[in-house]
Amino acid sequence: MPVVLVGTQVKGRANFMAVGWIARVNGSPPMIACGLGKNHYTNQGIAETRTFSVNIPSSDLLEKTDYCGLVTGATADKSGVFDLLYGELKTAPMIRECPVALECRLFRTVDLPTHNLHIGEIAGVYADGRVIKDGKPDFPAIDPLFLTMPDNRYWTLGKYAGDAWSAGKNLAKGG
Amino acid sequence: MPVVLVGTQVKGRANFMAVGWIARVNGSPPMIACGLGKNHYTNQGIAETRTFSVNIPSSDLLEKTDYCGLVTGATADKSGVFDLLYGELKTAPMIRECPVALECRLFRTVDLPTHNLHIGEIAGVYADGRVIKDGKPDFPAIDPLFLTMPDNRYWTLGKYAGDAWSAGKNLAKGG
Repeated sequence: MPVVLVGTQVKGRANFMAVGWIARVNGSPPMIACGLGKNHYTNQGIAETRTFSVNIPSSDLLEKTDYCGLVTGATADKSGVFDLLYGELKTAPMIRECPVALECRLFRTVDLPTHNLHIGEIAGVYADGRVIKDGKPDFPAIDPLFLTMPDNRYWTLGKYAGDAWSAGKNLAKGG
Repeated sequence: MPVVLVGTQVKGRANFMAVGWIARVNGSPPMIACGLGKNHYTNQGIAETRTFSVNIPSSDLLEKTDYCGLVTGATADKSGVFDLLYGELKTAPMIRECPVALECRLFRTVDLPTHNLHIGEIAGVYADGRVIKDGKPDFPAIDPLFLTMPDNRYWTLGKYAGDAWSAGKNLAKGG
Protein backbone atom coordinates (compact mmCIF):
# COMPACT_ATOMS: atom_id res chain seq x y z
CA MET A 1 0.00 0.00 0.00
CA PRO A 2 1.20 3.55 -0.67
CA VAL A 3 2.29 5.61 2.35
CA VAL A 4 0.92 9.13 2.74
CA LEU A 5 0.73 11.70 5.48
CA VAL A 6 -2.82 12.89 6.17
CA GLY A 7 -2.86 16.47 7.42
CA THR A 8 -5.58 18.05 9.51
CA GLN A 9 -6.12 21.00 11.76
CA VAL A 10 -7.30 19.87 15.17
CA LYS A 11 -8.34 22.52 17.68
CA GLY A 12 -6.54 25.07 15.49
CA ARG A 13 -3.23 23.17 15.33
CA ALA A 14 -1.77 21.32 12.35
CA ASN A 15 -1.42 17.57 12.81
CA PHE A 16 -0.13 14.75 10.59
CA MET A 17 -0.69 11.01 10.58
CA ALA A 18 0.98 8.29 8.50
CA VAL A 19 -1.65 6.36 6.54
CA GLY A 20 -1.48 3.33 4.24
CA TRP A 21 -5.19 2.62 3.87
CA ILE A 22 -5.83 5.06 1.08
CA ALA A 23 -7.02 4.92 -2.53
CA ARG A 24 -8.59 6.91 -5.30
CA VAL A 25 -12.30 6.15 -5.38
CA ASN A 26 -14.08 8.44 -7.84
CA GLY A 27 -13.13 9.77 -11.26
CA SER A 28 -15.12 12.95 -11.75
CA PRO A 29 -14.88 14.86 -9.54
CA PRO A 30 -11.65 13.21 -8.37
CA MET A 31 -12.01 11.73 -4.91
CA ILE A 32 -9.72 9.91 -2.54
CA ALA A 33 -10.66 7.84 0.52
CA CYS A 34 -8.74 6.90 3.65
CA GLY A 35 -9.65 4.46 6.39
CA LEU A 36 -8.70 5.61 9.88
CA GLY A 37 -9.15 3.73 13.14
CA LYS A 38 -11.84 5.54 15.10
CA ASN A 39 -9.54 6.26 18.03
CA HIS A 40 -7.20 8.39 15.89
CA TYR A 41 -6.95 12.10 16.72
CA THR A 42 -7.05 12.95 12.99
CA ASN A 43 -10.77 12.05 12.87
CA GLN A 44 -11.49 15.04 15.12
CA GLY A 45 -9.81 17.43 12.72
CA ILE A 46 -11.68 16.04 9.72
CA ALA A 47 -14.99 16.30 11.57
CA GLU A 48 -14.21 19.86 12.75
CA THR A 49 -13.00 21.38 9.50
CA ARG A 50 -14.48 18.96 6.91
CA THR A 51 -11.12 19.16 5.11
CA PHE A 52 -7.88 17.20 5.10
CA SER A 53 -4.69 16.98 3.09
CA VAL A 54 -2.88 14.01 1.55
CA ASN A 55 0.88 14.41 1.30
CA ILE A 56 3.19 11.97 -0.49
CA PRO A 57 6.55 11.73 1.28
CA SER A 58 9.73 10.75 -0.55
CA SER A 59 11.80 7.98 0.98
CA ASP A 60 14.17 10.52 2.55
CA LEU A 61 11.26 11.51 4.83
CA LEU A 62 10.90 7.94 6.13
CA GLU A 63 11.94 8.74 9.68
CA LYS A 64 9.63 11.75 10.04
CA THR A 65 6.80 9.84 8.34
CA ASP A 66 7.15 6.94 10.73
CA TYR A 67 7.29 9.34 13.67
CA CYS A 68 3.88 10.71 12.57
CA GLY A 69 2.53 7.16 12.75
CA LEU A 70 4.07 6.42 16.14
CA VAL A 71 2.81 9.31 18.24
CA THR A 72 -0.68 10.75 18.56
CA GLY A 73 -1.51 14.43 18.16
CA ALA A 74 -3.54 14.13 21.35
CA THR A 75 -0.31 14.24 23.37
CA ALA A 76 2.40 15.33 20.89
CA ASP A 77 2.56 18.60 18.95
CA LYS A 78 3.47 17.55 15.39
CA SER A 79 2.80 20.99 13.89
CA GLY A 80 6.53 21.83 13.80
CA VAL A 81 7.80 18.63 12.18
CA PHE A 82 7.40 20.02 8.65
CA ASP A 83 7.23 23.36 6.86
CA LEU A 84 3.58 24.03 6.16
CA LEU A 85 1.66 25.28 3.16
CA TYR A 86 -2.03 26.21 3.04
CA GLY A 87 -4.16 26.23 -0.09
CA GLU A 88 -7.59 27.55 -0.87
CA LEU A 89 -9.31 25.41 1.76
CA LYS A 90 -7.33 27.21 4.50
CA THR A 91 -7.74 24.37 7.05
CA ALA A 92 -5.90 21.51 5.33
CA PRO A 93 -2.21 21.90 6.24
CA MET A 94 0.11 20.59 3.53
CA ILE A 95 3.78 19.67 3.78
CA ARG A 96 6.32 21.66 1.75
CA GLU A 97 8.93 18.88 2.00
CA CYS A 98 6.58 16.43 0.24
CA PRO A 99 6.92 16.51 -3.55
CA VAL A 100 3.15 16.12 -4.02
CA ALA A 101 0.36 17.36 -1.75
CA LEU A 102 -3.40 17.39 -2.25
CA GLU A 103 -6.04 19.26 -0.31
CA CYS A 104 -9.46 17.64 0.01
CA ARG A 105 -12.95 18.73 0.93
CA LEU A 106 -14.80 16.04 2.89
CA PHE A 107 -17.53 14.49 0.76
CA ARG A 108 -18.73 11.82 3.15
CA THR A 109 -17.52 9.76 6.10
CA VAL A 110 -18.63 6.12 5.93
CA ASP A 111 -19.04 4.67 9.41
CA LEU A 112 -17.46 1.18 9.44
CA PRO A 113 -17.21 -1.11 12.49
CA THR A 114 -13.77 -0.03 13.74
CA HIS A 115 -12.75 2.60 11.17
CA ASN A 116 -14.01 5.77 9.57
CA LEU A 117 -13.70 5.84 5.81
CA HIS A 118 -13.28 9.50 4.91
CA ILE A 119 -14.03 10.26 1.27
CA GLY A 120 -12.67 13.61 0.12
CA GLU A 121 -13.01 15.54 -3.11
CA ILE A 122 -9.61 16.75 -4.31
CA ALA A 123 -9.81 20.56 -4.32
CA GLY A 124 -6.18 21.36 -5.08
CA VAL A 125 -2.91 19.68 -6.02
CA TYR A 126 0.54 21.09 -5.30
CA ALA A 127 3.71 19.55 -6.74
CA ASP A 128 7.38 20.35 -6.64
CA GLY A 129 8.37 21.31 -10.19
CA ARG A 130 11.33 18.92 -9.96
CA VAL A 131 9.01 15.88 -9.95
CA ILE A 132 7.08 16.94 -13.07
CA LYS A 133 8.34 15.72 -16.43
CA ASP A 134 6.51 16.47 -19.69
CA GLY A 135 3.55 17.71 -17.65
CA LYS A 136 3.15 14.44 -15.71
CA PRO A 137 4.34 13.23 -12.33
CA ASP A 138 7.73 11.51 -12.59
CA PHE A 139 7.32 8.72 -10.05
CA PRO A 140 10.98 7.71 -9.65
CA ALA A 141 11.63 11.40 -8.83
CA ILE A 142 8.75 11.44 -6.33
CA ASP A 143 10.38 8.33 -4.80
CA PRO A 144 7.30 7.25 -2.80
CA LEU A 145 7.20 4.76 0.06
CA PHE A 146 5.10 1.63 0.39
CA LEU A 147 4.00 -0.18 3.52
CA THR A 148 3.39 -3.91 3.84
CA MET A 149 1.51 -5.51 6.71
CA PRO A 150 1.63 -7.52 8.94
CA ASP A 151 5.42 -7.54 8.54
CA ASN A 152 5.28 -3.73 8.95
CA ARG A 153 7.99 -2.77 6.49
CA TYR A 154 8.56 0.20 4.26
CA TRP A 155 9.68 -0.25 0.65
CA THR A 156 10.65 1.98 -2.24
CA LEU A 157 9.28 1.98 -5.78
CA GLY A 158 10.94 -0.62 -7.99
CA LYS A 159 11.56 -0.75 -11.70
CA TYR A 160 9.37 0.20 -14.63
CA ALA A 161 7.65 -3.02 -15.71
CA GLY A 162 5.38 -2.10 -18.61
CA ASP A 163 2.69 0.18 -19.97
CA ALA A 164 -0.87 -0.10 -18.70
CA TRP A 165 -3.75 -0.43 -21.15
CA SER A 166 -1.10 -1.53 -23.61
CA ALA A 167 0.97 -4.52 -22.43
CA GLY A 168 -1.99 -6.90 -22.85
CA LYS A 169 -2.84 -5.85 -26.41
CA ASN A 170 -1.37 -8.99 -27.95
CA LEU A 171 -3.68 -11.13 -25.81
CA ALA A 172 -6.64 -8.90 -26.73
CA LYS A 173 -5.90 -9.64 -30.38
CA GLY A 174 -5.96 -13.33 -29.57
CA GLY A 175 -2.15 -13.52 -29.75
CA MET B 1 -1.28 2.17 -6.25
CA PRO B 2 -1.23 -1.62 -5.93
CA VAL B 3 -2.56 -3.63 -8.87
CA VAL B 4 -5.05 -6.41 -8.22
CA LEU B 5 -7.45 -8.50 -10.24
CA VAL B 6 -11.03 -8.31 -9.00
CA GLY B 7 -12.91 -11.53 -9.73
CA THR B 8 -16.65 -11.87 -10.04
CA GLN B 9 -19.21 -14.23 -11.43
CA VAL B 10 -21.45 -12.44 -13.92
CA LYS B 11 -24.42 -14.33 -15.34
CA GLY B 12 -22.78 -17.53 -14.09
CA ARG B 13 -19.40 -16.92 -15.77
CA ALA B 14 -16.12 -15.97 -14.06
CA ASN B 15 -14.77 -12.55 -15.00
CA PHE B 16 -11.70 -10.57 -13.96
CA MET B 17 -10.83 -6.89 -14.02
CA ALA B 18 -7.54 -5.11 -13.30
CA VAL B 19 -8.02 -2.57 -10.49
CA GLY B 20 -5.71 -0.01 -8.88
CA TRP B 21 -8.25 1.87 -6.81
CA ILE B 22 -8.23 -0.45 -3.84
CA ALA B 23 -7.36 -0.22 -0.14
CA ARG B 24 -7.93 -1.82 3.21
CA VAL B 25 -10.60 0.17 5.04
CA ASN B 26 -11.62 -1.61 8.25
CA GLY B 27 -9.63 -3.47 10.86
CA SER B 28 -12.09 -5.81 12.57
CA PRO B 29 -13.63 -7.46 10.72
CA PRO B 30 -11.05 -6.94 7.97
CA MET B 31 -12.53 -5.09 5.01
CA ILE B 32 -11.24 -3.98 1.66
CA ALA B 33 -12.78 -1.42 -0.73
CA CYS B 34 -12.46 -0.92 -4.47
CA GLY B 35 -13.69 1.95 -6.60
CA LEU B 36 -15.04 0.86 -10.00
CA GLY B 37 -16.34 3.09 -12.77
CA LYS B 38 -20.09 2.52 -12.99
CA ASN B 39 -19.93 1.31 -16.58
CA HIS B 40 -17.76 -1.69 -15.68
CA TYR B 41 -19.23 -5.14 -16.17
CA THR B 42 -17.78 -6.26 -12.82
CA ASN B 43 -20.38 -4.15 -10.97
CA GLN B 44 -23.09 -6.47 -12.28
CA GLY B 45 -21.39 -9.51 -10.81
CA ILE B 46 -20.94 -7.86 -7.43
CA ALA B 47 -24.59 -6.78 -7.38
CA GLU B 48 -25.78 -10.26 -8.44
CA THR B 49 -23.73 -12.40 -6.07
CA ARG B 50 -22.81 -9.88 -3.34
CA THR B 51 -19.33 -11.41 -3.41
CA PHE B 52 -16.03 -10.68 -5.18
CA SER B 53 -12.42 -11.79 -5.03
CA VAL B 54 -9.20 -9.77 -4.86
CA ASN B 55 -6.19 -11.48 -6.45
CA ILE B 56 -2.63 -10.15 -6.25
CA PRO B 57 -0.74 -10.91 -9.46
CA SER B 58 3.05 -11.28 -9.54
CA SER B 59 4.91 -9.25 -12.14
CA ASP B 60 5.14 -12.30 -14.42
CA LEU B 61 1.37 -12.01 -14.88
CA LEU B 62 1.68 -8.42 -16.16
CA GLU B 63 0.48 -9.19 -19.67
CA LYS B 64 -2.58 -11.18 -18.57
CA THR B 65 -3.34 -8.58 -15.88
CA ASP B 66 -3.24 -5.75 -18.39
CA TYR B 67 -5.41 -7.76 -20.78
CA CYS B 68 -8.07 -7.98 -18.03
CA GLY B 69 -7.99 -4.17 -17.84
CA LEU B 70 -8.18 -3.71 -21.61
CA VAL B 71 -11.22 -5.77 -22.53
CA THR B 72 -14.66 -5.89 -20.96
CA GLY B 73 -16.39 -9.05 -19.85
CA ALA B 74 -19.49 -7.78 -21.66
CA THR B 75 -17.94 -8.81 -24.98
CA ALA B 76 -14.93 -11.01 -24.06
CA ASP B 77 -14.97 -14.29 -22.15
CA LYS B 78 -12.13 -13.97 -19.62
CA SER B 79 -13.12 -17.10 -17.67
CA GLY B 80 -10.38 -19.18 -19.33
CA VAL B 81 -7.45 -16.78 -18.86
CA PHE B 82 -6.53 -18.28 -15.49
CA ASP B 83 -6.94 -21.50 -13.54
CA LEU B 84 -9.74 -20.92 -11.06
CA LEU B 85 -10.25 -21.71 -7.41
CA TYR B 86 -13.47 -21.31 -5.42
CA GLY B 87 -13.64 -20.89 -1.66
CA GLU B 88 -16.45 -21.00 0.84
CA LEU B 89 -18.38 -18.16 -0.80
CA LYS B 90 -18.76 -20.29 -3.98
CA THR B 91 -19.37 -17.26 -6.26
CA ALA B 92 -16.06 -15.38 -5.94
CA PRO B 93 -13.68 -16.92 -8.51
CA MET B 94 -10.05 -16.76 -7.42
CA ILE B 95 -6.91 -17.15 -9.52
CA ARG B 96 -4.57 -20.06 -8.81
CA GLU B 97 -1.65 -18.35 -10.58
CA CYS B 98 -1.82 -15.40 -8.15
CA PRO B 99 0.28 -15.96 -5.02
CA VAL B 100 -2.37 -14.34 -2.81
CA ALA B 101 -6.13 -14.32 -3.28
CA LEU B 102 -8.92 -13.10 -1.01
CA GLU B 103 -12.62 -13.76 -1.21
CA CYS B 104 -14.95 -11.04 0.05
CA ARG B 105 -18.58 -10.77 1.07
CA LEU B 106 -20.08 -7.43 0.03
CA PHE B 107 -20.67 -5.23 3.07
CA ARG B 108 -21.90 -2.11 1.33
CA THR B 109 -21.66 -0.32 -2.00
CA VAL B 110 -21.23 3.44 -1.65
CA ASP B 111 -22.75 5.28 -4.58
CA LEU B 112 -20.30 7.98 -5.72
CA PRO B 113 -20.80 10.32 -8.71
CA THR B 114 -19.04 8.25 -11.38
CA HIS B 115 -17.87 5.19 -9.42
CA ASN B 116 -19.20 2.51 -7.11
CA LEU B 117 -17.12 1.99 -4.00
CA HIS B 118 -17.60 -1.66 -3.09
CA ILE B 119 -16.68 -2.45 0.51
CA GLY B 120 -16.18 -6.15 1.16
CA GLU B 121 -15.52 -8.15 4.30
CA ILE B 122 -12.65 -10.57 3.78
CA ALA B 123 -14.12 -14.05 4.23
CA GLY B 124 -11.11 -16.13 3.19
CA VAL B 125 -7.46 -15.77 2.25
CA TYR B 126 -5.53 -18.21 0.06
CA ALA B 127 -1.77 -18.00 -0.40
CA ASP B 128 0.86 -20.00 -2.21
CA GLY B 129 3.06 -21.56 0.47
CA ARG B 130 6.15 -20.34 -1.40
CA VAL B 131 5.33 -16.71 -0.55
CA ILE B 132 4.94 -17.30 3.19
CA LYS B 133 8.01 -16.92 5.37
CA ASP B 134 7.90 -17.31 9.16
CA GLY B 135 4.10 -17.24 8.96
CA LYS B 136 3.97 -13.87 7.19
CA PRO B 137 3.67 -12.83 3.54
CA ASP B 138 7.10 -12.42 1.94
CA PHE B 139 6.49 -9.43 -0.32
CA PRO B 140 9.56 -9.73 -2.55
CA ALA B 141 8.41 -13.31 -3.23
CA ILE B 142 4.86 -12.11 -3.99
CA ASP B 143 6.49 -9.64 -6.42
CA PRO B 144 3.43 -7.38 -6.74
CA LEU B 145 2.78 -4.76 -9.40
CA PHE B 146 2.04 -1.08 -8.93
CA LEU B 147 0.25 1.30 -11.28
CA THR B 148 0.89 5.02 -11.61
CA MET B 149 -1.48 7.44 -13.31
CA PRO B 150 -1.77 9.49 -15.48
CA ASP B 151 1.45 8.14 -17.01
CA ASN B 152 -0.18 4.67 -16.93
CA ARG B 153 2.87 2.62 -16.07
CA TYR B 154 3.40 -0.56 -14.13
CA TRP B 155 6.23 -0.87 -11.60
CA THR B 156 7.66 -3.56 -9.37
CA LEU B 157 8.27 -3.42 -5.62
CA GLY B 158 11.59 -1.78 -4.76
CA LYS B 159 13.96 -2.20 -1.87
CA TYR B 160 13.33 -2.63 1.83
CA ALA B 161 13.58 0.87 3.30
CA GLY B 162 12.90 0.53 7.03
CA ASP B 163 10.63 -0.80 9.75
CA ALA B 164 7.24 0.80 10.36
CA TRP B 165 6.27 1.88 13.87
CA SER B 166 9.98 1.76 14.59
CA ALA B 167 12.08 3.94 12.26
CA GLY B 168 10.73 7.14 13.87
CA LYS B 169 11.44 6.12 17.46
CA ASN B 170 14.46 8.41 17.79
CA LEU B 171 12.31 11.39 16.86
CA ALA B 172 9.64 10.26 19.34
CA LYS B 173 12.28 10.34 22.08
CA GLY B 174 13.12 13.90 21.06
CA GLY B 175 16.32 12.72 19.35
